[in-house]
Formats: sequence, C-alpha cells, structure tokens
Amino acid sequence: MPSIEREFLMIPGPTPVPDRVLAAIAKHPLGHRSADFSDILMEAIDGLKWFGDTQNEPLILASSGTGGMDGAIANTVNRGEKVLSLVCGVFGERFAKIAEAYGADVTRLKAEYGSPIDPEAVREALAKDTKKEIKAVTVTHNETSTGVINDLKTIAKIVKDHGALILVDAVTSFGATPVPIDEWKLDIVVTGSQKALMLPPGLGFAFVSDDAWKAVEKSTQPRFYFDFKKYLKSQKERTTPFTPNVSFILGLTESIKMMKEEGKENIFKRHVHLRDTLRKGVRELGLKTVVDDAHASPTITSIWPSESVDVPTIRKQLKERFRITVADGQEELKGKIFRMGHMGYVFEKDIGTALYALKQIVGQPANAKEKTGAHV
Amino acid sequence: MPSIEREFLMIPGPTPVPDRVLAAIAKHPLGHRSADFSDILMEAIDGLKWFGDTQNEPLILASSGTGGMDGAIANTVNRGEKVLSLVCGVFGERFAKIAEAYGADVTRLKAEYGSPIDPEAVREALAKDTKKEIKAVTVTHNETSTGVINDLKTIAKIVKDHGALILVDAVTSFGATPVPIDEWKLDIVVTGSQKALMLPPGLGFAFVSDDAWKAVEKSTQPRFYFDFKKYLKSQKERTTPFTPNVSFILGLTESIKMMKEEGKENIFKRHVHLRDTLRKGVRELGLKTVVDDAHASPTITSIWPSESVDVPTIRKQLKERFRITVADGQEELKGKIFRMGHMGYVFEKDIGTALYALKQIVGQPANAKEKTGAHV
Repeated sequence: MPSIEREFLMIPGPTPVPDRVLAAIAKHPLGHRSADFSDILMEAIDGLKWFGDTQNEPLILASSGTGGMDGAIANTVNRGEKVLSLVCGVFGERFAKIAEAYGADVTRLKAEYGSPIDPEAVREALAKDTKKEIKAVTVTHNETSTGVINDLKTIAKIVKDHGALILVDAVTSFGATPVPIDEWKLDIVVTGSQKALMLPPGLGFAFVSDDAWKAVEKSTQPRFYFDFKKYLKSQKERTTPFTPNVSFILGLTESIKMMKEEGKENIFKRHVHLRDTLRKGVRELGLKTVVDDAHASPTITSIWPSESVDVPTIRKQLKERFRITVADGQEELKGKIFRMGHMGYVFEKDIGTALYALKQIVGQPANAKEKTGAHV
Repeated sequence: MPSIEREFLMIPGPTPVPDRVLAAIAKHPLGHRSADFSDILMEAIDGLKWFGDTQNEPLILASSGTGGMDGAIANTVNRGEKVLSLVCGVFGERFAKIAEAYGADVTRLKAEYGSPIDPEAVREALAKDTKKEIKAVTVTHNETSTGVINDLKTIAKIVKDHGALILVDAVTSFGATPVPIDEWKLDIVVTGSQKALMLPPGLGFAFVSDDAWKAVEKSTQPRFYFDFKKYLKSQKERTTPFTPNVSFILGLTESIKMMKEEGKENIFKRHVHLRDTLRKGVRELGLKTVVDDAHASPTITSIWPSESVDVPTIRKQLKERFRITVADGQEELKGKIFRMGHMGYVFEKDIGTALYALKQIVGQPANAKEKTGAHV
C-alpha cells in the first residue's frame, strides 16, 4: 500500500531535490532555439565552470552520467590504444568496461573494495610504461559502491606527469567536494544531475580540457550523439546540437543559484560535517563503517550491519517504518553492507533523522546502554 | 524584456505540455531501483506498446530522439555494410549521416524538399540490389523540416519484401498518426518525448523487432550507453541499465493516461482536423502551403510567406505581438518558409488563435476583401 509519508532518499542518486528546483522544472518548456533559452544555457554553463574552477567547456548532454563516461572514451581513446583503469569498486569497473567496449587495450589497477587506489601503485604502473603507450587513465573520484574517495589530486599529477590523459568519473563528487579542474589539470571530468547538483536524473556533463580536445581531433571511433565536437561547436553558438532537456537545464540554473547562495566553501564544509556526524552516530549505535576515516567519502557512507540485524532487515524497516530509502551493497557486497547517501540537498538534521530511525531498528550496544543507564 | 504572456509553442518540439504532465514531472523523484518505480516503468512500457500496436519492446533512453537514431544504427549496421537512406529533408539526411558516422556504405535516395519519397523509386533502387547486400533502409516517417508525411506502410512492405531492415524515424509522427508497428513489420521505430507524446524533451524511445534483434546479435559496432541488449535485459527485470529520467517516465505515464482518455482514433482524427483547418485558414489569407494536400503532415505545416511580408517579419511579429513561436525553414529553406507545429496537446481553438494572429500580420488578400466587403 503506498504511503502518504514524505520519502527521504538516502541513496546515491536520485537525491533530495529542493522545491525551488522542482518548481523550475515544472515550468512550461520553452523553445530550445530561442534567445531566451540561449541565455539560460549560457547561465548554466557559466555556473558549472564556476563550480569546477575551470575555463574548460562543460558539455551538457541529455543522458545519465554513464552517457558522459561513454562519450569520454568514444571521443579520446582509439581501438587498440592502451588504457589504465583504476578500479576500487563497481563504477571504476564500469569505466574499464566502457573502454573495453570501444576496443581499448585495458589494464586494471585494482584496490580491494572498501580501500582507495594507492597513488604510488599508479606511479609504479605508469613507470613500467616506458614507451609511453598508455593513452589514458580512468579514475573514479568518489567510488559510490563502497564509499571511498580517491586522492584525485595526487593521482592526476602522476598521470599528467607521465603524459597520459586523466579521465575522471566525478559523478558523485562534483558539487559536494572540491574538483578544481584547471588546477588539477583534469582532462575530462564527467558528472550527472541527480547527485550533489540537486536535480533529478536526466543530464550528464563532461568538462573537456585542451589536451583532451587534441585527442578528440585524432579520434577515429564511430560516434554521433556523443560526438563532443558537435556540442562544442553548438555551445560556442549559444545552442546545442540536438534537442536538450530544456526543463532540467532551467532547473540547473536554479540549483546553481542556490549553490552560490550557500557558497562553495560552505557546501564543501557541510558535506564533511554530514559525513563526520553520520560516522560518529552509527559508531555510537555499535555499527562499523566499511571505509577508514582517512578515505571516507563526503557524500556516501557504507556501513556493516549489526550482529543481530542484517542488511535486508535494516533496509526494509527503514523503508516501511520511516520511509527512508538507503542503498544495498552492490555486486559482491550485495546484502553485506548498506549505504547511506548524503549528497546535495541534505543537512545535519537529516542525518539526525536517519540516526534516530537506525537506532529504533538496531538498538543500542550493551556498553552504550550501561553508560546512559536508566535514560534508555 | 521578458513578456508575462503565456507562450504558444508552434514549433516541432518542444510542444505544449499539459498541466497534468507538468505536475507529474514536478513530483519529487523516487529511487529508480524501487518496486514503486518498477511499476511506473512497466506502466510506461505497456502504454507505449498500446499506442504502437506492438509486442516489440520499446526501449526507454535518457536522451533526445537523435540518441535513439544513433542507437538504431549502432546496434544493427556494421562498418562497411550497405544502407539505403531515403532523404526528403533535414532529418532524413541526419539518419544518413549517422549511418555514415558508423562507417556504413550509404546510398541516398532523394526526393525534392517538399515532396515525399516515391515508393516506386524505393522498389527500383532495391531491385538493383540483386545480391541482397543492403542491410537496412532508413526512412523518416514525418519529415519535420518540410512538413511531408511519407507513405511508410507501402515503403515498409517493399523493404521487408526485399529482406532488408526498415529503420524508422517516427519522432514527429508517433503519438499523432497511426504507426502500427507489428502490422507494418517495422524493425526499429524511434521517437522522442517532446512531440506528440506531450512531454518536455529528455526521453528517446526505440521499439525493436525480432528481425532487428537478430541483427543486434551480429553487430560488431562499439557501443555502451546505447547498447540495446543492456536495455532489453534490464527491462525484462523491470528496471533500466543506467539511471533513467524517473521524472519524465512518471510524466509519460500521465500523458499516456490522457491519450487513453481521448482514444487513439480520436487522437488521429484530431491531428488530421488540425492540419486541414490550418491549411484552409492560411489559404484564405492568400498564403500558399509548401506541401500538396496528399502528402501534408498531420503534425507540422510549412507555409510560404506572402509577397509583401517576409518570413523573418512574420516570425518576429508572431513572437512579439502574440507570443506565438513558429519555426523558420531549415538549411536551404531557412528564411524562405515558416513552419507551424500542431502536434500533441493542440486543439482546434489553438489553430484559430494562430490564424487570427497570422491575419493581423499578413492581412487578407485583395480578393478575399472584396468577397467579405464592408465587414473587413
């Protein structure tokens, strides 16, 4: 039976969408070849550049984030060229699979699920590439499947020093944590609308550097809808090559306004605070987090279940008793961990809500009960 | 200066979106891996099958219609294989270009812009293919750039009798005019959300036949985001391979409800009536239509300007005085014709609105003034 209770989406996308953004999306769409829409498109592009601290053009795609990852490979890596894929979870593996789908010669550098990529291992892997044959390195900034954030700054420097392209899946980091594209010299940064950008799913983005554009010029992969050159040419003319999602681009201008009102530094601090508050809270409930503090994602937290209450029960009760949706583990971690998203339009009191609900389900550990005594 | 007046979009997409659909889209998105969303997805898929009179699975893509056309080629036509592209306007040419982008050996069968494809010319072209090397024929059902509707039923029979695949761009016909997919044996039918389906732009659809799936099995083109097999597999499991546009799929279930309320036959009749009413009205204003009656599109009408008022003036005055947006001609017809869309959520009184406005701008012809005399 459907519940009338407002849902709290603590999954890694879709994430909570502010009413202001929903109201913008609900406006009647305008013609995408109108001067009014050109203004909106340029406002969105400028806002994305502002948030990414970059002069690189952010291409706006009507697709999910995976569409942007597809385009990142299809536009820069030719059949048979070497790609080093850094894999510490499902989304790192997806990037590797996309490169393989386009016929690249992919080598995976893996970290155990729950651990980050070791930048020194990247340095060693690249050092073996004495002929400089590795064209590109794919990396997941924030690995959603485990809740790990990688040290993108250090990894990017190693990759760029080697002379390869750094292709970044920043789908669940961009908008929540610093991704200074120009300073870190990131070649392609892909993100999506339904994460920290506070929109529903439906837009993909790809910021493309000068080095990446040089690779695009040499690309021989077949492509049409995700042909980045078509987007660049059109965006220079204040338009899009194909019909864009005008409603969500209007929504994006509203979410960017909100991000400017809060300020970038405050957004970054808020996400760190959400992470730390949640981690502290779940530990007080006797639960263990999957990822160590040093590499814990600011946007999603993976948690082991308690000894007495398993993952299916926790997820079911959160959903049925409190209408809070949290994510299961993925693939080899399915049913073994649960994941709580806290990206975008989420505040400390929402973490409080989640902790309250979790406490009703898993109870408190014996030692905590002793400490708090009769008040429990 | 922005106008507060409600805009009437008479362009070939985005088209007017009903309030009911906008309200559905404005709902807070739900998780795409939830049982609730699976129900919504299946409702949308069933509705699309109902409208297309088909058992073929309609794949729902987060993309524009062009994404669906890209996928239609990428999944069925291999590099070097022969494609016959029927071109009577900009969108027929786009389909040919997509096939070329994927390395197909494309032959164009052209009709003059403003004229339809002659089915007998298709028969002759295929008769020359004695070795049956032509893998697929691309055709635009309704050529938006000129306002021509092609005789898809006859063309499809000729193509299927020859043993080739028939790949159909039905972007501006599906939802307004019959496209009985199974009866006409159409192999891939592509459409988009922002036309007669009464949604904003952001969804692409591709209905895939058994014959087309056989070609998919033999496809060697690189692809990932538009890999049709991934969508089929997921949809059989009541889900999607990548994050879908949950908001617009919810909107789609609402627009399908409305289409069922009106009834398919009534929808088809309404679009024919809109076309005939508009054509009669513009002729009474002394203007000439581009396409002859026998091949006139039920969803978009192309019109030559009057001798005294040119296309830029007509478009500018419709926009500035009445906030009605009509489309310019495209490419070689730019500035020479204007196009009035009447697809989806458009009714006879809206045609009346457009004719009233047009009359204020182009006036009435001398002979019409004589006839109506003092009343003018």
